[in-house]
Amino acid sequence: MQQFDAIWINASIATMTDNGEPYGSIEDAVLAVKDGLIAFVGRHSDLPAFDSLTTPIYDAKGQWILPGFIDCHTHLVYAGSRANEFEMRLNGADYQQIAAAGGGIRSTVAATRLASHEQLFVLAKDRLNVLLSQGVTTVEIKSGYGLDLATEQKILEVASELERCHPVSVQKTFLGAHALPAEFANDADGYIDAVCQMMPVLQQQKLIDAVDVFCEGIGFSTEQSRKVFSVASELGLPVKAHAEQLSNIGGSALVAEFGGLSADHIEFLDEAGVAAMAQAGTVAVLLPGAYYFLRETQLPPIELLRRYRVPMAVATDLNPGTSPLCSLPLMLNMACTLFRLTPQEALLGVTRYAALALGLKDRGTLAVGQKADFACYGINQPAELCYQFGVNQLKQLIINGKEVNYRM
Amino acid sequence: MQQFDAIWINASIATMTDNGEPYGSIEDAVLAVKDGLIAFVGRHSDLPAFDSLTTPIYDAKGQWILPGFIDCHTHLVYAGSRANEFEMRLNGADYQQIAAAGGGIRSTVAATRLASHEQLFVLAKDRLNVLLSQGVTTVEIKSGYGLDLATEQKILEVASELERCHPVSVQKTFLGAHALPAEFANDADGYIDAVCQMMPVLQQQKLIDAVDVFCEGIGFSTEQSRKVFSVASELGLPVKAHAEQLSNIGGSALVAEFGGLSADHIEFLDEAGVAAMAQAGTVAVLLPGAYYFLRETQLPPIELLRRYRVPMAVATDLNPGTSPLCSLPLMLNMACTLFRLTPQEALLGVTRYAALALGLKDRGTLAVGQKADFACYGINQPAELCYQFGVNQLKQLIINGKEVNYRM
Ligand SMILES: [Zn+2]
Ligand SMILES: [Zn+2]
Repeated sequence: MQQFDAIWINASIATMTDNGEPYGSIEDAVLAVKDGLIAFVGRHSDLPAFDSLTTPIYDAKGQWILPGFIDCHTHLVYAGSRANEFEMRLNGADYQQIAAAGGGIRSTVAATRLASHEQLFVLAKDRLNVLLSQGVTTVEIKSGYGLDLATEQKILEVASELERCHPVSVQKTFLGAHALPAEFANDADGYIDAVCQMMPVLQQQKLIDAVDVFCEGIGFSTEQSRKVFSVASELGLPVKAHAEQLSNIGGSALVAEFGGLSADHIEFLDEAGVAAMAQAGTVAVLLPGAYYFLRETQLPPIELLRRYRVPMAVATDLNPGTSPLCSLPLMLNMACTLFRLTPQEALLGVTRYAALALGLKDRGTLAVGQKADFACYGINQPAELCYQFGVNQLKQLIINGKEVNYRM
Repeated sequence: MQQFDAIWINASIATMTDNGEPYGSIEDAVLAVKDGLIAFVGRHSDLPAFDSLTTPIYDAKGQWILPGFIDCHTHLVYAGSRANEFEMRLNGADYQQIAAAGGGIRSTVAATRLASHEQLFVLAKDRLNVLLSQGVTTVEIKSGYGLDLATEQKILEVASELERCHPVSVQKTFLGAHALPAEFANDADGYIDAVCQMMPVLQQQKLIDAVDVFCEGIGFSTEQSRKVFSVASELGLPVKAHAEQLSNIGGSALVAEFGGLSADHIEFLDEAGVAAMAQAGTVAVLLPGAYYFLRETQLPPIELLRRYRVPMAVATDLNPGTSPLCSLPLMLNMACTLFRLTPQEALLGVTRYAALALGLKDRGTLAVGQKADFACYGINQPAELCYQFGVNQLKQLIINGKEVNYRM
């Protein structure tokens, strides 16, 4: 007899695997867990014999089970609020006036530098709890509001503490090359050198899982990004980029050249860039929240991405400047409404392809041997999760095979 | 000594009155309630003597207090889901294919006709609980998914039951003229006659607080709308309209002609219509959720509305077809982000001017004698409520002077 720690019966399961059905669905399905992993997933009729007297059995009553959601692009460790500049801008202030009032990313950097580890932890933990309440079980967290070694380290240490003590899995990304700090005004190359020197220090403390750059006309050039990627590669760290958000300068192709994990935003990506990503297996991370909040009009090249079979992920980009939207379910709706993804594409984007964007092979689908991170939803079809927003359909959340309390 | 039932001290209060400060703010403020009404609101230094030994005192610890939010335009009593057509459309289906599959408003009408009172009540109650959890204390609910007397009555009876047993106040609007039912295909005038005959029946049962029409090229003409408004006026019922959403056919001016409460959507409203509304005191109800969900590009004439001092309200338009977004806080963000309202305008739009849009003079601001419906938020400035989305900032909710449990 097979041993299970717990079993869910009478479920509709969206495995998000390629089983020939939409969403990789299995009807009248059963899912069993053992030692934090999925031990069985399939039709009830295929379930092996197990000890039904001692194994806890959950009756899903026809509800849908999906993999835990993965938010593969966030900046959720920061201090300060940008509500003031939001209000100033809506009252007609221009960029100069906002900068003069101390606004912009520098205000977030200043507040984050001033904040203690404990203050940052409380702020970040609250945001992570919100994501958990939405069915998110893995999250990526970028540094990038420190722009000096001490503060970048502080941010990554907060992420690391969340990793240890919060039920949501955390992946830590070093984004030293996020913006040019005031100390290096007019010396972007000098700052890039500093970033390259931070990397081995932070890596030695096990604070980096991947390296990101803001590769953009108003950010860092492809040559500067290449320097960062070269050092990352020497250190064995995978790379990714904020790329082609406002213009097409080749950041995505650069990521592909380094065999990187993902190119994120990519509204201005061209066909050559898409082809390069396809070849390299680089994931396209779509960030509809920033597109919405910045009132962008250039849509990412969804048709090209489909044609070249580039996997598309969807994430919040949660950050105080361009996407203060702490909701992955809202991103599912926006990915469909604004970017015209199908609900299946959007849901693959927060499960299977979000895992791929983080280089995590042990999650994102429901299959034997995968991490037992999944959620039960009171819905009639997976598309409900994209179509409707606001009514929380989450009924049960399981991480590492154990039920977690996700309510706020 | 003055008698209070409870008192809140150390608050920042956004009274939303015209006291010369943004948001009608009072710093270091106190709010006291008695018999469900506000008995004092002002500076601590102006607080009269009261029995501080027996009166419950809440320390707001610098938190902000705002009026309870009012969602002045919803269709929240309905059955069925339109996730299927949402998915079909994103997979390339056109209008005909969706209609052939039973989609569109007729699917909601069919499901709502089939649903029992109890089923509708449970669905609506769940949605109302979500709004409550967002700080909403008054909601308008429209009929309009019955399109026959029995079902319109059933919807309004559900709204009426919510009014009796739910902490959120409910205003009931008869929207018989929402769409043309299949029984009256090609006979819109005949259906309008039927609608006019429903009105007195429903009014006699105290099921109508106001009358709405869908006045649009694809809905009912201004002449048909005029018939409905004439009967409503004879019955002493205030009127409003879904108007100028897709074209400018004069629905808003018609509402103004009848001294109506509000014209809603109004993306295509022209200056003459704005002037008519200003003259009549008709409120402009902005519905950014539908604008977003339908990917509209024509913005409502915000500058004209400002110039003519037409009060602007903001609402969810919660409905399964064009705004399946059960979140008034999201509408605050969308009103600012998409329509460029200032945070103060947006917050006035869910408080003072939303009350005005419902003809309710006893709420929407925090002033002596007003209904004691208010909320405490853990924010540093009111604009936070518009800028940030997802992190629930609500800390305490009071309705009729009593704390209510708003958590889901
Ligand atoms: Zn980002
Ligand atoms: Zn409506």
